[in-house]
Order: sequence, then C-alpha cells, then structure tokens
Amino acid sequence: MKPLLDAIRPTTILEPEKLRSLLDLDLVVISETFQHTGSFKFRAAYNVVLNRPESEFVGVSSGNFGQALAYACKLLDRKCTVIMPHNSSKVKVDAVQKYGAEADLINVNEVSRVERLEQLRQQRPDAYMASAFDDRLVIEGNSSLGDELVDLGLDAIVIPIGGGGLISGTVEAFERANQTVEIIGAEPAMANDAAKSLAAGRIIPNKFEPQTIADGTRTLSVGDLTFPVIQRGVNSILEVSEEKIVEGLKLYFTHANLKCEPTGALSLGAVLQNVDQFRDKRVGVVVSGGNVDPEVYARLIANG
Amino acid sequence: MKPLLDAIRPTTILEPEKLRSLLDLDLVVISETFQHTGSFKFRAAYNVVLNRPESEFVGVSSGNFGQALAYACKLLDRKCTVIMPHNSSKVKVDAVQKYGAEADLINVNEVSRVERLEQLRQQRPDAYMASAFDDRLVIEGNSSLGDELVDLGLDAIVIPIGGGGLISGTVEAFERANQTVEIIGAEPAMANDAAKSLAAGRIIPNKFEPQTIADGTRTLSVGDLTFPVIQRGVNSILEVSEEKIVEGLKLYFTHANLKCEPTGALSLGAVLQNVDQFRDKRVGVVVSGGNVDPEVYARLIANG
Repeated sequence: MKPLLDAIRPTTILEPEKLRSLLDLDLVVISETFQHTGSFKFRAAYNVVLNRPESEFVGVSSGNFGQALAYACKLLDRKCTVIMPHNSSKVKVDAVQKYGAEADLINVNEVSRVERLEQLRQQRPDAYMASAFDDRLVIEGNSSLGDELVDLGLDAIVIPIGGGGLISGTVEAFERANQTVEIIGAEPAMANDAAKSLAAGRIIPNKFEPQTIADGTRTLSVGDLTFPVIQRGVNSILEVSEEKIVEGLKLYFTHANLKCEPTGALSLGAVLQNVDQFRDKRVGVVVSGGNVDPEVYARLIANG
Repeated sequence: MKPLLDAIRPTTILEPEKLRSLLDLDLVVISETFQHTGSFKFRAAYNVVLNRPESEFVGVSSGNFGQALAYACKLLDRKCTVIMPHNSSKVKVDAVQKYGAEADLINVNEVSRVERLEQLRQQRPDAYMASAFDDRLVIEGNSSLGDELVDLGLDAIVIPIGGGGLISGTVEAFERANQTVEIIGAEPAMANDAAKSLAAGRIIPNKFEPQTIADGTRTLSVGDLTFPVIQRGVNSILEVSEEKIVEGLKLYFTHANLKCEPTGALSLGAVLQNVDQFRDKRVGVVVSGGNVDPEVYARLIANG
C-alpha cells in the first residue's frame, strides 16, 4: 500500500463547554465536517484512488461518497463517473460535476443502481468499480481517522453506522495501536439492519432503503468485509429515534456552533437517548459529515 | 502582565476547497466560532480578568462580550455583572446567567447603558468596569489571535471592525513579530464610523446605534485607545453592504460547512464586494464569532 494520505485534513477536535455543561458529560466532538468534500468519505475515496492502478473509477452515490470520489479522482488525475438517482438534489449533482466527474443520472424506477453499475462494468471493463464501504482500501482509508483518536484518552467512541466502513476503520486503528476503547455504533432505529445483524450473528439486510432523515445510512446492509470487523470490535449498536437525531443536530447548532448533517448528528443523538450510560466516561462522538441542503437545515433548526 | 492565555482555544484555520474554487481566490478562513463562548471576545475578557486584581467585574453587552466576561469570571472565580437591554434575546440572557453572572436588565428607554454603568460604578466602587474594546488588556488579549496568524504566509487579512479591539490586537501582533501584512477592516456600510474616522483623521461617532444585521458592530465609535492603532496599522477599511454580509454567511454554510453569525461574515462580505482587489493574494478572512439565534439563521440561509 502507498503511504497513507498526505492529502487528508486532520479531523477537528472540539470540547464545547456549553454542550458539555448542558449534558454534564465529558464529551469530545470529533468533526469531519471540515474534511475535504465535507465528510469522512474523502479519507476512503482518496485511499482507493491512490492505491489502484486504474485510470477510471465508477461509484454509486447520491451523497458524500460521490463527491469524495470525484474530488479524489480530480486530485490524482483519473476519470470518474458517479451513478446518481436522477432526482438527486441539484446541489449534489453540481458538486460532483464541479470536481470534473460525470454524473450518470438514472431513473431508479426503470433501472436499479446495481443494474446500472453492472451495465457500466461491462461497457468499461478497465474501470474500477468503487464501493462506498465494502472495500479493504475504504476501511483502511477510514482507519486514518481512528489513528487520530487513539491518543485522546477516550473511554468510549460513538460512531454513525451505514455500511459500516467508518466504524470498521476505527476498530482496526485501535487494534493496530494495541489500545482498548469501547466502540459503539449509532444507527437510526428505522434503519436498524446493523443492530439486527450484530444480534443475529449474520447479515440481515433492510428490504427497502429506509427513509430516515440520516440519509447517509440509507444503505441496505453492512458489507461482507465490514461485518466481521464489526462483530470483532464493536461493543454495541444503539438505535436512535429520528427525534433524537434532530435534537442532536440542533444542539450542535445552539451549543457548539457546529453545522452538521443529520447523519453526522446520529452519535450525539445516541448519547442523548442513553445519557446515563455515558456518565463518568470520557466519550467521543464522531460527526461524520456536514453536507445538508440549506432548506432542510433551516427547517430543522427553526422548527424541527 | 501575567503569561498569556493558557485558557485560550487555538483558532480554527480552514482552506475550504469549494469556497476557494468558487471565488478563484487563495482564501484562508480563520474562525473564532469554536473559541470558548463562541467568539474572539473570550481572548480579551479572559486577559482582563486574569490581569486585574478586583474581585468583581461589570461589563455592558447584549452579546458576545457579556458571555465572554461571565465565563472568564467563572473560570477565575470572580463576581460578574453584565448590563443588558431588557429586550435582549432570551438565549443571550440565559448564557450569561448559566456562567454564573448577574444579568442586570435595563430598559434602555428609561436609562442608557452609560448611565447605568455610572450608577453601578458608584454603588460598587471596588468593581472593575470592563470595556469591550477600549482597554489595553482587551487589545493585548485579542492580539493572541494575531500571534497565531503571523506564520500563515498571508498577504492580506480582512477583519471585522466594531470598536476596533480585534483589528488593533492584530496590528500589534504583527508589529511584535516584525512582519508586514496588509490589514484591512470590514465594516457595515450603514455603520461606517470607523471608515469615516480613518478618512478624517479623528473619531467620528455614529449618532445612533446603526441597525445593521452585523449586530456585533453596532458600536457608536472606535475607542480612544484603538483608534491610534488603527491609524498606524490598518491599510484600509472596506464598507460592506447588508446583502454581501448575508451572501458571505450563506457561502460559509454551503461551501465551507461553517456556521457563523452575521458579524463574522463581514470579512468574507468585504472580499465578495471587492474580489478583484484580492486576486493573486493569499488572503485571510477572520470569522469573529458564531453566536446567532436559530430563527435568524434559518431565515438567512433559506431566503436571505
């Protein structure tokens, strides 16, 4: 593997006094909202493109991974295509195109993302099909965030779970450093496939994309590569109500001056919902990203 | 003077790629939104309380200086009173009280802030009356931000001006480091007393508190101590329209994931209004603070 990630921006560590004293918790906020392209996904995408020989990359994403892959390809001078639902928000399509990538817009009622990916795989046999989470290079890229956390003296870390790429990377970083910490997943209650899978000991996918406000976790299931890491290193997965996600997002605004996207507020939502579990612990909450449409955000902080 | 400011949180330096490429500028964002109490004012307030022997402090502020003074007094175990207009937003009164200070609410139609300060000065002869900007300890405290900027390789720095405390501190930090940089003030066009004063060579106060959206600059004039520093070290003062302030605030949201208050967006607003002046320069924009009511912010990002 190539040396890790000179291009990565270090994460932002905050100990916001107002939020800590409101909750009476030793809370450390670990924010990836200022990472390049606005989410931790850039760590993964950059590591993939850096370490693969292909000159062309194809990914599927209506959100953060698409932007991250597009920007990584721009930096490393590769061709990039991002398959996106045709009704993706204009802001997200624009972002992908501004990084010089092709936005391949599909009508998901006519062709599924997986089918379209298969079509492109056959049309472009030399391109690398980049998964947003189920790829060793993705997990390793994400583990660079975990590397930044091993010296913070944390007792517990709460991390949003979608496909499980970020939490798997964190597990591996702490294993590599030979340190123990309680690693806790935070998943929307209405998209609780990872919690169910961990309890059952096998992957149990959602039947449909759950329409949680935490749109970064609308994955159908964890991955074949991430699940064993989760089984090995994740202590528990907390299921978070939509209300607590929104409460977390609002508290970041009012008590920490932090703009985050709903998915990024999952970990604080999990803490709010289980606050007694975190008393007398130094607990880190990972804010996975900050990209959210202004209209959605305005509604959430004003009324949500 | 006591050694400077162990309690201060280092500023947050961002080089947001989306914003830089949108504006095609070598832009460096210097954000005090994550400073304790959410604005640079804590640097000043803490330095004042640390270096004065009094056991009681009185300040006048409906905004950031009040919170900063209250928190500094809490940390250093002093008594604190903040004179605030009785119609100040609840969020601001609450913040001052949560830090253990007394909020002295006055009806400004019956007694002016200055009159009330004089009343308290007579009632409490042993208390220190803390100015938000016109105090050597305030300027010195603010200069700790400037100290963090001298090694960034900037050609120009744009800084919001209200009473002139922050820009004066920055001037003194660069003088102390024996470095030259273009220091530019950003002032609301409808509250342009500093620009007028700099042009005239004498302090020209506003007659009334100007109702700019950048409420941190609603001061009547620059200070007797700050004005000579401004004359000596500030290259120019740009007058910013209300529209450009709001545009700056929105761009921070959409292109940098940064929540800031309207006053904090003044410096980016000045750059937007004079963009050609900053071509081929490495320009730092100081975001002075992040405290803004959710209803106001929601309105600005959604429609403003």
